[in-house]
Amino acid sequence: MSTSDRSLPVAVFDSGVGGLTVLHECLVSLPHEDFLYLGDTARFPYGDRTPAQLAEFARELAGILLERGAKLLVVACNSATSAALPELRSELEREIPVVGVVRPESRLAAAATRNGRVGLIATPATVKSGAYAEALAEEAPAAELHAVASAELAPLIQAGGEVDHRTLACVEGACRPLKRAQVDTVILGCTHYPLVRPVLQRELGRRVTIVSSGEAIAAEVEARLRASGVENDEHRRGEYRFLATGDPEQFRRAGTRFLQLPIGSVEHVEVAAAGPGRKAA
Amino acid sequence: MSTSDRSLPVAVFDSGVGGLTVLHECLVSLPHEDFLYLGDTARFPYGDRTPAQLAEFARELAGILLERGAKLLVVACNSATSAALPELRSELEREIPVVGVVRPESRLAAAATRNGRVGLIATPATVKSGAYAEALAEEAPAAELHAVASAELAPLIQAGGEVDHRTLACVEGACRPLKRAQVDTVILGCTHYPLVRPVLQRELGRRVTIVSSGEAIAAEVEARLRASGVENDEHRRGEYRFLATGDPEQFRRAGTRFLQLPIGSVEHVEVAAAGPGRKAA
Repeated sequence: MSTSDRSLPVAVFDSGVGGLTVLHECLVSLPHEDFLYLGDTARFPYGDRTPAQLAEFARELAGILLERGAKLLVVACNSATSAALPELRSELEREIPVVGVVRPESRLAAAATRNGRVGLIATPATVKSGAYAEALAEEAPAAELHAVASAELAPLIQAGGEVDHRTLACVEGACRPLKRAQVDTVILGCTHYPLVRPVLQRELGRRVTIVSSGEAIAAEVEARLRASGVENDEHRRGEYRFLATGDPEQFRRAGTRFLQLPIGSVEHVEVAAAGPGRKAA
Repeated sequence: MSTSDRSLPVAVFDSGVGGLTVLHECLVSLPHEDFLYLGDTARFPYGDRTPAQLAEFARELAGILLERGAKLLVVACNSATSAALPELRSELEREIPVVGVVRPESRLAAAATRNGRVGLIATPATVKSGAYAEALAEEAPAAELHAVASAELAPLIQAGGEVDHRTLACVEGACRPLKRAQVDTVILGCTHYPLVRPVLQRELGRRVTIVSSGEAIAAEVEARLRASGVENDEHRRGEYRFLATGDPEQFRRAGTRFLQLPIGSVEHVEVAAAGPGRKAA
């Protein structure tokens, strides 16, 4: 299957439904492209997996997507990006462009900041990985990164329901050090966070630019498709489909909040139960 | 009660929960101001009321809010604005600034359009009123307004649930003539529509600027507070409260989707059951 065929979809994978906020931005920005999304809900969450497992999962998911045909691959998952992107890229980049999180939003943040003070809100694992600090240092060597780790925010959003006072308190706590540091730009370093973006914007103030993975990746995907000469005609209407390794109906129900667009049918695909190559802790 | 006291809240009223999308933008833009929102859910919807009734309702609701104290009044309702804004303004403007819909978003659209082709999606009553055509003609005399009336979109959104294929079909139908007319700016002429903004943006394309009442009114409220010298210190944290003429719990449940922020307690207030001064059809 040639991956330089413009009629192929853009493939996106994530550990679950969080990456649908990335797909959302891609669908709004690139309505003329087709997308195929794979959520590894059977093995969600990825937070406590070893890097070797994550790399194995990423390779397996990429394999499923490439077998069906894709012209670009998006890794819409922070854990998988930090553990497996370089390896995945070196294995696949001759065949297909691979776009991950972290770098695109660091680039956007570097372009957006005026005072050189950039905030980051992310899970403890993501903050600890240092991936954003590294990417921002390359994009804007003079910028300071003020990182806030929140263990609670993503699970609160994943649990669903209304934005309540626990979520508000959690957002306030995350924003306090960023306001103190007078950041003018904040990276949402987790694909779940766009669901509380209004709460964050109210807390940070309208003058702070919020950068999400979704909008950064949508811009990157557009640029990469154009650079590879495989972008579709802007007058056609694109389609999008879903694969899930867990229960399709559960994916559909949980995913709608994240996608904010209709999720039609979801097809089940099998992956190794515990993940092939699982290393015992 | 002096209305030039900066410690007073900004008062907002609407026929129901739709105006909460306006409050949402105000809360995000002006986190340091207090707001008091009154939803006339007992008499919702306003669509089939006579202009005389609407004027009477507007006067009654404004009276309730002003009695509690307010430094600015927002009429976040298209029906009430077109029927009663000039009258309300002439009665109250010496006491308190009054901001309605239509004019602020027409001004924003006039500033945003580059090719002079502005689209409008609104309910049939709003399109028929000619209020947007008039306001846009004053703000940008050379601009063409391409108005699309949709009877279905607001009720579909009000009914709630996921964005489904009926909503998609409805949005596609509304956007078709706008795309044909090559508008580069579209006014959302109903406070319900921001809930399907991503669907609209995907349909219209990222290059089309979408203007909602909420963001236009938030900008107008900010400017008017500053002009009157009653804006609050930006370092304080504002609060917001709710009044509903119908069942408070129902308001809270229906409203959360529109506000996208926690709705705490809602206080019930009484209004005349059928509306005072109701004219038989």
